[in-house]
Amino acid sequence: MKIQKVSEERDSKIILALDVSSRVKNENDVRELYKRAKSILDETEQFIAGLKVNFQLLLPLGLYGYLQEVLGAAREYGLPTIIDCKINDVEHTNKWAATHFFDAGFDALTANPFTGWDGGLKGVFDEARRRERGVILLVYMSHYGAEENYGREIVLSDGRIKPYYKFFAEKAVEWGADGVVVGATRPNVISEVRILLPKEIPIFSPGVAVQGGEIEAVFKAGTDYAILGRTVCEAKNPRETIKWYVDRVKKIL
Amino acid sequence: MKIQKVSEERDSKIILALDVSSRVKNENDVRELYKRAKSILDETEQFIAGLKVNFQLLLPLGLYGYLQEVLGAAREYGLPTIIDCKINDVEHTNKWAATHFFDAGFDALTANPFTGWDGGLKGVFDEARRRERGVILLVYMSHYGAEENYGREIVLSDGRIKPYYKFFAEKAVEWGADGVVVGATRPNVISEVRILLPKEIPIFSPGVAVQGGEIEAVFKAGTDYAILGRTVCEAKNPRETIKWYVDRVKKIL
Repeated sequence: MKIQKVSEERDSKIILALDVSSRVKNENDVRELYKRAKSILDETEQFIAGLKVNFQLLLPLGLYGYLQEVLGAAREYGLPTIIDCKINDVEHTNKWAATHFFDAGFDALTANPFTGWDGGLKGVFDEARRRERGVILLVYMSHYGAEENYGREIVLSDGRIKPYYKFFAEKAVEWGADGVVVGATRPNVISEVRILLPKEIPIFSPGVAVQGGEIEAVFKAGTDYAILGRTVCEAKNPRETIKWYVDRVKKIL
Repeated sequence: MKIQKVSEERDSKIILALDVSSRVKNENDVRELYKRAKSILDETEQFIAGLKVNFQLLLPLGLYGYLQEVLGAAREYGLPTIIDCKINDVEHTNKWAATHFFDAGFDALTANPFTGWDGGLKGVFDEARRRERGVILLVYMSHYGAEENYGREIVLSDGRIKPYYKFFAEKAVEWGADGVVVGATRPNVISEVRILLPKEIPIFSPGVAVQGGEIEAVFKAGTDYAILGRTVCEAKNPRETIKWYVDRVKKIL
């Protein structure tokens, strides 16, 4: 995966989530939001291993609108890009969404394994394989309420009981996922999932700092990349903030 | 809910999903896609109770781009609009997505209850309530693979076992959802879910015809609205096709 190479070259395990947000009433507001996002990317690019884009940027900028400028800049900087769409629709829609995200230049997308395979995520994996792009599966999200279902015990077809996140981690292996998401707020889950996955499948952990995750605990538990969003984007000095985290991770590892 | 009033006025239980799709290389392709979508809406508007928009239209047109023209036309026609985003992110992102979808003019959005409440969907419901918009929860999707998880048995906190879709239907009541989605491919599930819900919470059923759902069975099972997408959008005559379905439903009920 492209991200591993970039991570090694830059000696960084940090992915920037461009979580800048504002309402947009007109074209000028959209341009201002774009400029804010672009300036954070410019300031931090040399310290990050990749860029993640979420709905709060996709919707106002538009996939084929100003977001193209952001993706173009990431490409020039040599950064892999992830669209965090958490796709979970029927196959026809999933395939079209994947087609547009990949056409627009994203290297990988996130998907919810709860969707299932046949008529669900199969088409996304097919599309990703055909175009050498990545699919990252949600295994356990970072928010408190994720426990309600990602942490829920389910009945398997042979009658055994298992928590959902372990089932999802097994699906990631079975389906050939290019990565999984386990929230930084649950280092114990990261450790458990790390054991279930071959080392070729990296763990991405969002939810450090603002959401309560602790960077040391997350990397000691075995995550591969921490995703920093508001912690960096809302910092007075995004560049110093991300540098601080990159250095901190180097000391831990 | 606005949709019920429109449905009664027009004597139609059919919602149009504007599932037109194409890759877009330039502004001209985007305009052509918009024109195709708009022309289907214009042809069918007097026979439908609402309009649903999916990723295959949202991504190429852009929420604040050509999609504004589609939403403006729907508003002029007096049609309620649903964005089928199946939102399933953390609260901060969900709230921003809901803010943008509602700012852009959508009356309701779809959400995946698997996300959970605290730090998950709570923010979406808060935002919807504050602005008098709707949240429609997925209870059982229409594709074959939905069975893997929507149909899976889970262990409740008191140790009882229950299929997920029944748990989700109960969440729809508990959280005050404005509707639920149960795929047209599973009339038995529609019957079971109908019993669990008060009549104020309508069932929306996508997946008729192209995906294999049968219109008679779906309404006899107790669905409130059928969502027609490719069946209409890929028909030689969308207007006649939707009229045929509207009349068919009248005969059933």
